Amino acid sequence: MIRIFVTGGTFDKQYNELAGTLAFKDTHLPEMLRLGRSRVDVDIRTLMMIDSLDMTAADRGLIVEECRKARETRILVTHGTDTMVETARALADALPPDAGKTVVLTGAMIPYAFGSSDGLFNLGSALSFVQALPAGVYIAMNGRYFTWDRVRKNRDSGVFEAT
Amino acid sequence: MIRIFVTGGTFDKQYNELAGTLAFKDTHLPEMLRLGRSRVDVDIRTLMMIDSLDMTAADRGLIVEECRKARETRILVTHGTDTMVETARALADALPPDAGKTVVLTGAMIPYAFGSSDGLFNLGSALSFVQALPAGVYIAMNGRYFTWDRVRKNRDSGVFEAT
Amino acid sequence: MIRIFVTGGTFDKQYNELAGTLAFKDTHLPEMLRLGRSRVDVDIRTLMMIDSLDMTAADRGLIVEECRKARETRILVTHGTDTMVETARALADALPPDAGKTVVLTGAMIPYAFGSSDGLFNLGSALSFVQALPAGVYIAMNGRYFTWDRVRKNRDSGVFEAT
Amino acid sequence: MIRIFVTGGTFDKQYNELAGTLAFKDTHLPEMLRLGRSRVDVDIRTLMMIDSLDMTAADRGLIVEECRKARETRILVTHGTDTMVETARALADALPPDAGKTVVLTGAMIPYAFGSSDGLFNLGSALSFVQALPAGVYIAMNGRYFTWDRVRKNRDSGVFEAT
Repeated sequence: MIRIFVTGGTFDKQYNELAGTLAFKDTHLPEMLRLGRSRVDVDIRTLMMIDSLDMTAADRGLIVEECRKARETRILVTHGTDTMVETARALADALPPDAGKTVVLTGAMIPYAFGSSDGLFNLGSALSFVQALPAGVYIAMNGRYFTWDRVRKNRDSGVFEAT
Repeated sequence: MIRIFVTGGTFDKQYNELAGTLAFKDTHLPEMLRLGRSRVDVDIRTLMMIDSLDMTAADRGLIVEECRKARETRILVTHGTDTMVETARALADALPPDAGKTVVLTGAMIPYAFGSSDGLFNLGSALSFVQALPAGVYIAMNGRYFTWDRVRKNRDSGVFEAT
Repeated sequence: MIRIFVTGGTFDKQYNELAGTLAFKDTHLPEMLRLGRSRVDVDIRTLMMIDSLDMTAADRGLIVEECRKARETRILVTHGTDTMVETARALADALPPDAGKTVVLTGAMIPYAFGSSDGLFNLGSALSFVQALPAGVYIAMNGRYFTWDRVRKNRDSGVFEAT
Repeated sequence: MIRIFVTGGTFDKQYNELAGTLAFKDTHLPEMLRLGRSRVDVDIRTLMMIDSLDMTAADRGLIVEECRKARETRILVTHGTDTMVETARALADALPPDAGKTVVLTGAMIPYAFGSSDGLFNLGSALSFVQALPAGVYIAMNGRYFTWDRVRKNRDSGVFEAT
């Protein structure tokens, strides 16, 4: 059983056609897993639905606490890419490797609701890394995985890089 | 560096609008990796472009031989789902774990060119498993991985299951 | 009120993922009209779900009879492109201009269920021509309309041309 | 030959993945016409690339002037939906029916770059109405056409209605 915590991010942004703006409504995770014909046993919980630039210390504290409390040892967190590294660091502080938990954060550069999204690829990737990697906190983006302390988002290219 | 061998399968079927039939043309792998914003270092080679029901012993022998010869130790094979298990078995015979190679086969139930394809999810998944799993031959489908000798395709549901 | 008769054709082909073949199931018309946010008052009836190459004289007779009987004076027929011109001719024989009916046939080169379909464009086009054109039998394809007696499908290019 | 003037609007909004916002870049019109396999002879010119809420009297004056000067008698204008009716009015003032020009404005509620856009349907519709309607200024939305003086956008439902 894998726990999935949804926190929002570009992944789940959609177009509000009356307002003409991007907004959050419900998570697309169940629909994405259905499209991917996933048969992985998952339990999805939405913790928040926000842009990661708007994430406060309290929000981050909640994510950490939920990961700490979760009975599952394999946890996937969907997250905006802009502060994903910061949340990964907070998680690593609270969940050292001997906590026995594998936590993988992922997100998307393009909303899933857009035809050209990287979201489905990233979800397939993160869901696989979380099953196969040893205990630790990781970011899965661009088809790769990074340990929490050796990664940064290159804001010019939008790509995650090893540091 | 990861080696990707393309063999066809539903993954790469497309609609021939003049004939009104499904057919193979070029592989969609590079386009899919671009959509997924993959930064994994890969070398893609198309070995054949066929329906896996049409795969002969000679075709299978070629796949095995190419995997055996490849200098890369991590190899992804795209393949039709109908005889994927059979090819996995042939690969396992030729590449015992002490050969030090991780080979992951994947495919799709719906062609990538269709809007509702599972292909992008599967590619993200297989590309991640091939990076994270130890030496051996595996099938990555439905968000899960299976060792070659403990998997079958359920033809009624279209889902891969552990045996 | 516009009457829509569905007869199948590439428009409505979908991928049967267990068989790995193209097949008909339900029509996509209601979903397409919803996606187009259509507010045109329509009544959709499925007469048959077949490839137009398989259409018999009896099938064609049924389409003609239904168009003749329909109380609506504006009728849209979805149809496979291969024999669309032949059905248009049969309709024109039974519905001379003084019958006061505008009948527009349309179809698609790529199934709607494929991401790259021309179907939504063609549906928007045909639905508009059927509202604006005078009584007569027409084919709406490639963004254009043709009277039934001055059109052919160019089988090499897949494009409808004036004759 | 049909003249197409592009002015922006939701039609052409796309997702800027580095900024995480909606923005204009190039028009999607040529790509959309290609997808629709359109063989209508068109000449596309981009006049501006703006949200119609940001459209000034000067912008509107430019659109009117370009339509007035155009040698083509059939003109399609893509436009944001919020002030489409206002631009239609300005066009009707400058182009009375005896000017002999058919001008059709259209737009979209969802950007074309989104998978679920109504844009392709609307383009097929508007391109057809502009070929079939007599001289005058019209709005083509929701599969219907409206003369410029008998239409409003219902801001609660996002639907264009006759007045």
